[in-house]
Amino acid sequence: MLGEVVAIGRVERDGADANPEQFFDPALESVLVIEPRWEAALTGLSDFSHLVVMFWFDRAERATESPELRPAEGREELPPVGLFATRTPRRPNPIGLSIARLIGQDGNRLCVTGLDAWPGTPILDLKGYTTRDNLRPEATNPYWLEALWRMHDAER
Amino acid sequence: MLGEVVAIGRVERDGADANPEQFFDPALESVLVIEPRWEAALTGLSDFSHLVVMFWFDRAERATESPELRPAEGREELPPVGLFATRTPRRPNPIGLSIARLIGQDGNRLCVTGLDAWPGTPILDLKGYTTRDNLRPEATNPYWLEALWRMHDAER
Repeated sequence: MLGEVVAIGRVERDGADANPEQFFDPALESVLVIEPRWEAALTGLSDFSHLVVMFWFDRAERATESPELRPAEGREELPPVGLFATRTPRRPNPIGLSIARLIGQDGNRLCVTGLDAWPGTPILDLKGYTTRDNLRPEATNPYWLEALWRMHDAER
Repeated sequence: MLGEVVAIGRVERDGADANPEQFFDPALESVLVIEPRWEAALTGLSDFSHLVVMFWFDRAERATESPELRPAEGREELPPVGLFATRTPRRPNPIGLSIARLIGQDGNRLCVTGLDAWPGTPILDLKGYTTRDNLRPEATNPYWLEALWRMHDAER
């Protein structure tokens, strides 16, 4: 055990997520409601176009050992992979990550798009997305992930 | 308090970091030594060219309230900003993030470059870096960060 994590705020979104299993809509707006005591620490963050948002999968069961390998989303056409090769919330440390576009700030409320987290999700950390630290234009994806995305695009 | 975090492994690097305050060298190789019980869960991760590495700043003092605003690296030419606008390890949740290039895998050992973490640092999570989730070619940086980078480039 290394330490405890605390919430610096929560995700807020208009309208309940009727079906949380539905496809994530990257255009959907969310609000990061940050605790007032951290509001001053947000200064300068609105100078970034995008934010790195870390959050805690508070409704996920935690992985305590390597689970059986399975294909992404259980699709049998794809090869079985381990949890670290996926974005499953069932991880040893249930920490989620989204790169969100910052739309605007009103005090301790940051309006963003691109946040793949349910309403009420506790926020752990915010960092500015920078071209030097986060942008890797040369990055390539696994063939099975490209195949999964093609399936998504066909099904939407 | 939301929960506890655990180490899934540690950072290993040849040669001690003589001066940890020195500039980070993105070409330096590091090894992510993952605990054997998580080795199976790495399956498929080597299909990614880059990894999202989350780690725990185990030698940093934790921020328990918004600290006074200060310019990046204490450089008085730059505007004072809050902790979330910086990469300081003194955060409410001392979680660090690096996008590392995957060089190779040998069982539970992943060789990477671009990991800005000291040797011995506990690793919290690994995710594959994907073009859909992590690449934001349209991202822009704050003017004061671009100014800081120009200073770095001039000083190196």
